[in-house]
Amino acid sequence: MAWIIVSQAESVKDDRPRLIRVSTVFPSRIKAEDMFCNSSPCCNDAGFLQKNNSLDEKSRMVGAFKESAKNQMSCDNSERFTRAETDFSNLFARDLLPAKNGEEPTIQFLLEVVEILTNYVASTWSCLTNQSRWSRSWWTAETRSSMESEQVRAHGAITTPSNHDLVKLFTYEIAPVFVLMEQLTLKKMREIIGWTNGDGDGLFSPGGAISNMYSVMVARYKYFPEVKTKGMSAAPRLVLFTSEHSHYSIKKAGAVLGFGKENVILLKTDERGRVIPADLEAKIIDAKQKGYVPLFVNATAGTTVYGAFDPINDIADICEKYNLWLHVDGAWGGGLLMSRKHRHKLSGIERANSVTWNPHKMMGVPLQCSAILVREKGILQGCNSMCAGYLFQPDKQYDVTYDTGDKAIQCGRHVDIFKFWLMWKAKGTIGFEQHIDRCLELSEYLYNKIKNREGYEMVFEGQPQHTNVCFWYIPPSLRVMPHGDKRREKLHMVAPKIKAMMMECGTTMVGYQPQGDKVNFFRMVVSNHAVTKSDIDFLIDEIERLGHDL
Amino acid sequence: MAWIIVSQAESVKDDRPRLIRVSTVFPSRIKAEDMFCNSSPCCNDAGFLQKNNSLDEKSRMVGAFKESAKNQMSCDNSERFTRAETDFSNLFARDLLPAKNGEEPTIQFLLEVVEILTNYVASTWSCLTNQSRWSRSWWTAETRSSMESEQVRAHGAITTPSNHDLVKLFTYEIAPVFVLMEQLTLKKMREIIGWTNGDGDGLFSPGGAISNMYSVMVARYKYFPEVKTKGMSAAPRLVLFTSEHSHYSIKKAGAVLGFGKENVILLKTDERGRVIPADLEAKIIDAKQKGYVPLFVNATAGTTVYGAFDPINDIADICEKYNLWLHVDGAWGGGLLMSRKHRHKLSGIERANSVTWNPHKMMGVPLQCSAILVREKGILQGCNSMCAGYLFQPDKQYDVTYDTGDKAIQCGRHVDIFKFWLMWKAKGTIGFEQHIDRCLELSEYLYNKIKNREGYEMVFEGQPQHTNVCFWYIPPSLRVMPHGDKRREKLHMVAPKIKAMMMECGTTMVGYQPQGDKVNFFRMVVSNHAVTKSDIDFLIDEIERLGHDL
Repeated sequence: MAWIIVSQAESVKDDRPRLIRVSTVFPSRIKAEDMFCNSSPCCNDAGFLQKNNSLDEKSRMVGAFKESAKNQMSCDNSERFTRAETDFSNLFARDLLPAKNGEEPTIQFLLEVVEILTNYVASTWSCLTNQSRWSRSWWTAETRSSMESEQVRAHGAITTPSNHDLVKLFTYEIAPVFVLMEQLTLKKMREIIGWTNGDGDGLFSPGGAISNMYSVMVARYKYFPEVKTKGMSAAPRLVLFTSEHSHYSIKKAGAVLGFGKENVILLKTDERGRVIPADLEAKIIDAKQKGYVPLFVNATAGTTVYGAFDPINDIADICEKYNLWLHVDGAWGGGLLMSRKHRHKLSGIERANSVTWNPHKMMGVPLQCSAILVREKGILQGCNSMCAGYLFQPDKQYDVTYDTGDKAIQCGRHVDIFKFWLMWKAKGTIGFEQHIDRCLELSEYLYNKIKNREGYEMVFEGQPQHTNVCFWYIPPSLRVMPHGDKRREKLHMVAPKIKAMMMECGTTMVGYQPQGDKVNFFRMVVSNHAVTKSDIDFLIDEIERLGHDL
Repeated sequence: MAWIIVSQAESVKDDRPRLIRVSTVFPSRIKAEDMFCNSSPCCNDAGFLQKNNSLDEKSRMVGAFKESAKNQMSCDNSERFTRAETDFSNLFARDLLPAKNGEEPTIQFLLEVVEILTNYVASTWSCLTNQSRWSRSWWTAETRSSMESEQVRAHGAITTPSNHDLVKLFTYEIAPVFVLMEQLTLKKMREIIGWTNGDGDGLFSPGGAISNMYSVMVARYKYFPEVKTKGMSAAPRLVLFTSEHSHYSIKKAGAVLGFGKENVILLKTDERGRVIPADLEAKIIDAKQKGYVPLFVNATAGTTVYGAFDPINDIADICEKYNLWLHVDGAWGGGLLMSRKHRHKLSGIERANSVTWNPHKMMGVPLQCSAILVREKGILQGCNSMCAGYLFQPDKQYDVTYDTGDKAIQCGRHVDIFKFWLMWKAKGTIGFEQHIDRCLELSEYLYNKIKNREGYEMVFEGQPQHTNVCFWYIPPSLRVMPHGDKRREKLHMVAPKIKAMMMECGTTMVGYQPQGDKVNFFRMVVSNHAVTKSDIDFLIDEIERLGHDL
């Protein structure tokens, strides 16, 4: 269970959320007020919100600490580890390292963790005899809404060592708190998408590629349910549509699921990487004329390279007209839904039939944490259930619709929800919003810095929609060269060479790739708001230092 | 990164391996001699082996500790957290809690962790500037074989906060140590399977169901590669074979991949749940006569309910005769390969084309940790690659065959290998063997205890092959009832009722299910060797206490 500590430690570095009370380090210590408290004063009408924390972080940072730490760390440690009375209820994560003067509260925090750990081993060692303190109220409606502390405490059972598979999401009886956390969080995400009452269904999956695969499976099941039993030969030739800039997982899903990748039709994009809706409609008509059956359209919210957002409303109009499944791949851009400033880029997402949204990308949750969200209730179950009676017994004494195992293509699933839930509790919706707004500000800073700078060319015009800033660095020797194949060839080599030198120097690392007919260019992406403007300045200095003589 | 601590904390409870030096808590501190040291004295000729640790654990256990801990925990804590000089090189995990007198070393161990954590925050806070200390030797052959400490230290970069996706398995440059760990460990697993030189390929996937799905995909690609491009309509009607006792994921793979679940043909088993080879051959012939094309046979090594091992050699003979892909689903039973005493149950596995093996089941690795292993090199890549140039640049300055991303159906993958690798380093192959042998001994103890006990009936005759012990408890009221439908109906209700009472009492929990025409029976599975005979005695007492008056 100690991975809960991880979330704490990591949040200290890449964010300054309000500190979750140390007593939440183990599920057995989670208090009711630390669960979803929609009615308590710590939440506002947007739900899930928590106190706003000032982000004036730079003044508090590590410069001063580093020196003092160096001095202290060689000293006698017995003094460092003196336990003192600490009021954790007034402690915020931003007070911990790397904050200035953060060492003492950090150590006190960690000592509290040590105490909980050692106490915990003592109190849970007896295996079977203390295994599960279930009570009848566990599976009542009240439990699900109130999640009172007594019931939550019972979940400490999940760590007893006599059950090999208790920390997985599979059935309610095995992981009741995690199942409920997943349900509540998915519902909250569906509300944020804009589906009425947050209705629908969903799952956390092992990544965006699998989430996208789910969307194609569910679309197929919706229109051709007999494929589940009889195979693809029971359906006509089905075609899927996605942009040429979309993630390769849509094409991969086509190959894996038996559509064939040539039946994944790539749509043209404008110069900024956004699908051209007219091209979609033309290709639908063309496919129908050939006798194929259009099934599914993927609209990307935040493409991998350009960070482009396809025009969802225009695409949704076409999908409605031709009765096609609309999926929005928001693996990368879904996080912007948390930002009042930027969520307009996903306008129309509420019209989607399914959405992929990876909190492990833009929202900074440690990998893996990806959600597939489906508007129609029950269809995930219908699509994937095999009714394995030996695993899912209908005669249990609780509501077995909480057993999620049979609607996944996996059997037991890793518990991806807890770290996300804990982070959401710690940062609040506003914390995520600040995180995202900050990352976009930093990208804007980079964009403004280089857009007119000598030696740079932007890959597309105008401010990027997401944090992807795509650019070429043109070394002085190329600046005087006439445009043409020779310059292209040389420019193609620049980014790989600079990256290789960066890696050998060990100073920094930045990605590059070609795209379509465009030769290799750099793509700088910011998803961690601990990055500073000086880091970005450093990156540009480094590119110029290493690339100047190429 | 603190999840490494978890592995430590958990191993303390469910095993007594040699303590990994605290300095390995972070990858940046891993020393060369802690990596795969095939030539050092700590390894013997079976490779991967470590010092044998005595398992005489019970005498050291927690009983005495609990009392003293209770007393201490209410005391002044400042004294508990006094740092003392501790020689960790002589400390073993079995010396930590819940061992008798384990509190002090445990606290010292955790204080060391606290120190590493706080030092780590100080030394890595500067984001981009210290990001990656790559050196040229990182991608030389020597690196891969020697993994010298300097290079490993460089991998500390993975935790710098400016890269949102550095703790995932995707490309070598992003996670070089983890990529190498995965490759070395998969090779070791293939050697243990018995494939020449450990050749072949493999991946860690998010679970056994996905691993099994990979096997079907690869088989399809082997025989009908055009399906990848053209879809299932490019192939004849393909059929898959698996036993009626096999895991439902094979059928699910059939549905997902577009074969259709009616084309997954279920094979008859003997009374102990093992495939009847003659039935396989008969069904192959029957399918061919109908014009279908047999493609794939799954042999289960350790079925979910009975723990049965299909006769792999007999099945392999048939697969060779009819040129079919042979997959062994060893998700549950694969761990027995680590046991010299029990691995004969998987005889013939070296003839398989692919193997699923979940270290997160019988070997006690925390979920998720599942491997799909394939005998033919390159076929995973061929099956799954989409050649996404924007993600996998061929012009990098290292050997890009180490970029594993494109052979997975996922994009970035969670790092499942590290905990397994660390556990293997800590326990050694012998440690796993002891773990497994111990679990089987405990099951044998349970079997012997109840096989002739009044009020019990075994679901199948003879000693179970795996740790699954399947039995009915017959309450006194049913013992006098004549066999027939009425008794069956009543017996069907017994296990659910007892389980519900167990959960309400909170004393223990044990699974049940029906199977074929057999009414609900208990299935007791041991996969954690911390379980004791007294736990098993308690379970039986509890069943009798709760079930006596039913």
